[in-house]
Amino acid sequence: MHRGAAVLAFDVGGTDLKAALVDEAGSILEIVRVPTPRDGARTADAVVAQVGELARRLASSHPQVRPTAAGLLVPGYVDDEAGVGIFSENLGWTDYPFRARAESALGLVVAFGHDVRAAGEAEYRLGAAAPFRDVVVVTIGTGIAGAIFLEGRPYAGGGMAGEIGHSKVADGPECVCGRNGCLEAIASASAIARRYTFASGIAVNGAKEVLERAAFGDPVAAGIWESALDALALVFSHTVALLAPEAIVLGGGLAQAGALLLEPLERRLDAILTFQRRPQLLLASIGENAGVIGAALRARDLISRRGLV
Amino acid sequence: MHRGAAVLAFDVGGTDLKAALVDEAGSILEIVRVPTPRDGARTADAVVAQVGELARRLASSHPQVRPTAAGLLVPGYVDDEAGVGIFSENLGWTDYPFRARAESALGLVVAFGHDVRAAGEAEYRLGAAAPFRDVVVVTIGTGIAGAIFLEGRPYAGGGMAGEIGHSKVADGPECVCGRNGCLEAIASASAIARRYTFASGIAVNGAKEVLERAAFGDPVAAGIWESALDALALVFSHTVALLAPEAIVLGGGLAQAGALLLEPLERRLDAILTFQRRPQLLLASIGENAGVIGAALRARDLISRRGLV
Repeated sequence: MHRGAAVLAFDVGGTDLKAALVDEAGSILEIVRVPTPRDGARTADAVVAQVGELARRLASSHPQVRPTAAGLLVPGYVDDEAGVGIFSENLGWTDYPFRARAESALGLVVAFGHDVRAAGEAEYRLGAAAPFRDVVVVTIGTGIAGAIFLEGRPYAGGGMAGEIGHSKVADGPECVCGRNGCLEAIASASAIARRYTFASGIAVNGAKEVLERAAFGDPVAAGIWESALDALALVFSHTVALLAPEAIVLGGGLAQAGALLLEPLERRLDAILTFQRRPQLLLASIGENAGVIGAALRARDLISRRGLV
Repeated sequence: MHRGAAVLAFDVGGTDLKAALVDEAGSILEIVRVPTPRDGARTADAVVAQVGELARRLASSHPQVRPTAAGLLVPGYVDDEAGVGIFSENLGWTDYPFRARAESALGLVVAFGHDVRAAGEAEYRLGAAAPFRDVVVVTIGTGIAGAIFLEGRPYAGGGMAGEIGHSKVADGPECVCGRNGCLEAIASASAIARRYTFASGIAVNGAKEVLERAAFGDPVAAGIWESALDALALVFSHTVALLAPEAIVLGGGLAQAGALLLEPLERRLDAILTFQRRPQLLLASIGENAGVIGAALRARDLISRRGLV
């Protein structure tokens, strides 16, 4: 990141909550990762409380740095402009006024937004998606969603675009959204681990272990991994038919598989497409910190808009 | 249409070629429809020759009207800006310089473009899509394709966006693009007629007759119609997941089925979607002349840009 104001950045994921302090030089001074707190219908309150607590921890470790704003990202359906988390199927909130609550908890102005769109924006402004005008940045982690950039501008669709995790691709398995056969229920990092455990009875430590087992010849692991690749390639082919992006950039936990993800996806996409423009398939270059960097960019943008610096 | 220059408008479809003369008041004085000429690898030349012939017919019927420009639309992959028909699977051309050839044949400046995008633009500027900022206008005729408008602007994807007719939705039947299971091979008006004849051995006069047979209890016709509706609803659900449009507007020959198309599609889309923004499903209001009106709008736009009037 460039020089600018010091800001706090929070990225609330389905599994972890990350908090970072970015200094005026644009460096991340410290990043803290804790499990996302869960408290049933009060999960959103617990998240905001945790955000306040992490801000205090970062302030006490770096008393010389005075952040002037914060960026806060959450998953699900998000109305960036209203500052509201409309709905999260994974974290169980509905119409929660995150921006207002976080501003109270932090005593700072807060830029609020959607985790995947903001992480995608970091890739688009500073990372692997930067060379392209028409590009989709897909995050594959607990869920699957895309950030869409067309003719050089982000497209949010009223906060509801890019939800390709809930594209129906099969008759099963059941998805958190209540439907069967969503991409996310087949090919997200969590789904790959969950489906393997369901099929084999063997508990695994995430999708990474399923890939390792597939590489060592476990046919159940190989079958689940291949069905995930098939589903991803099919949904990407639909994205190509509709939007003809120049590139699809892959981020999130599953992208850590690198060439093991990219190469079989390219082969499958090639086999499906005929006359269409072939998108480049690329790995995200900012990687797992794209969320907090996207949050910091949003906080800096807010400062510029409000003329706070 | 509004007042402006008199223009010629040509809409080349997979089945018919329509030519119209629009006067300064914006009225269509006459519209002529002929079968699209086919001459193997020389089909594009035959189309341009036919366009010249129809221009002469219209000029001799209306000697008092002097068009200052023409609009020409063709199907397939089209580079509007370069004036080139990149590829048409139905009509068999590759990289054909339509604009230059049509300008020679007509002795007029020619605005060239993609049939579905320009027809969609007519619906977006003057028809059923006008109230929306994020909307997809889908034409279902010989082929299936969509014109995409996001945040009030058309999105062309380098001439390759909106090709949802080649979204893969099943393992069969074979599509003109060389793949199996494209939406267009299952649910276009021509595919519905072709599949019925293949399954029943009975020749029919288009998709309309298949719908009539289904309404009178023909189980083969009903099965084919329902599978077409299923495929359309599935692809629309993918469009909703990715773009969350406010509306999907249906045009082309199959949209003449009206409520027989709209109501079962709405029911199916409702059954697939869960938490997503429900798009309004609407019938195109300009209907079968949207192509020539789109061509005339393009010709008028060209005149404005070049300061010809």
